[in-house]
Amino acid sequence: MPGSPCIEFWFDFGSNYSYISTMRIEHLAGERGVAVRWRPFLLGPIFRSLGWETSPFVLQKAKGEYVWRDMVRECRKAGIGWPRPSEFPRTSMLAHRLALAAAREPWIGAFCRGVARRNFVDDQEIASSAAVAAVLRGLGVAPDEWVAAAQSDAVKQGLRAQTDEAVRRGIFGAPSFFVGDEMFWGNDRLDDALALAGTHASGGADAAA
Amino acid sequence: MPGSPCIEFWFDFGSNYSYISTMRIEHLAGERGVAVRWRPFLLGPIFRSLGWETSPFVLQKAKGEYVWRDMVRECRKAGIGWPRPSEFPRTSMLAHRLALAAAREPWIGAFCRGVARRNFVDDQEIASSAAVAAVLRGLGVAPDEWVAAAQSDAVKQGLRAQTDEAVRRGIFGAPSFFVGDEMFWGNDRLDDALALAGTHASGGADAAA
Repeated sequence: MPGSPCIEFWFDFGSNYSYISTMRIEHLAGERGVAVRWRPFLLGPIFRSLGWETSPFVLQKAKGEYVWRDMVRECRKAGIGWPRPSEFPRTSMLAHRLALAAAREPWIGAFCRGVARRNFVDDQEIASSAAVAAVLRGLGVAPDEWVAAAQSDAVKQGLRAQTDEAVRRGIFGAPSFFVGDEMFWGNDRLDDALALAGTHASGGADAAA
Repeated sequence: MPGSPCIEFWFDFGSNYSYISTMRIEHLAGERGVAVRWRPFLLGPIFRSLGWETSPFVLQKAKGEYVWRDMVRECRKAGIGWPRPSEFPRTSMLAHRLALAAAREPWIGAFCRGVARRNFVDDQEIASSAAVAAVLRGLGVAPDEWVAAAQSDAVKQGLRAQTDEAVRRGIFGAPSFFVGDEMFWGNDRLDDALALAGTHASGGADAAA
């Protein structure tokens, strides 16, 4: 409902730090009474606008080496699995489109965690329709209708528009979070973003009391 | 002494996130019985090796805009001042050289905080001998001998060697921390680095008990 506390979660399935936030956000937001608005977008166009062909973790060798060490520590803190994937970054246009089409479904969080786990824990491709359908089936969702919807022109255009909105709002990496107009970048800021959103939640509760 | 718990703090006076760690590290390390080894180095050569003329916060407009907003929040968390400096990044070869020459002096932490505060809080240049001398005088240290030492060939060569060592050990940004061979990047990881160093400290205490 309008005015209820909400965090916007902007993510890309190929992004390793998005993976950590994807696994954490729904549970942590729930504890604070904050709703999650799942907002998939594509990092690729943003990287290309900076003249980069791929992730800076691939392009900058020293930073890339560090990131995989940092990921081991950060995943341990988050209590989630981390075998380094054999391919990085894995792209998946279809999974992004499907997450956009299904963004308000009750199973959207579970779907995103399923795709993220498949990529980063199971070390499997996430690009094919078969991969995305397998994740849906794992949730008890019949895949055919959703895969078809994700491939519609409306959804394709919707994902382009969502990526354009990311650029317009100043997003330059993933994960990013918005609480109102306040932007936070990186899994490291998820707790701060939720705390701000939770303040809004408490304010609402106080107002109602 | 050898084997006593220690954190290496690699920093550049021009780096805004180094500023936050500079203001925090000595107090936090002291609480855990961890010694700080101050290791100034130059980010410039590392940025240039990546093809960058200056800080990525200047080169990448969206990221740069975000960083100043993030700095306000992070400085508030750290309880330190933050008026956005009118010039960024401010370079100071002399301050780096002096911090190298004086790295084992009891006043090294206070000196680094003085330079950092002058740059980021007082919004004043830190490049001239007069600026560096003013910081030293504020600590009750007679500046002439130290400024002369900082300009010696041995110290100039020492700072180049320290920057080479940074590259060799995989440093790509500042602040960075080492606890033994374990590297941590960014003010966001200072607490984790100190926790690891503190584990070593506890181990030593147990062994001695």
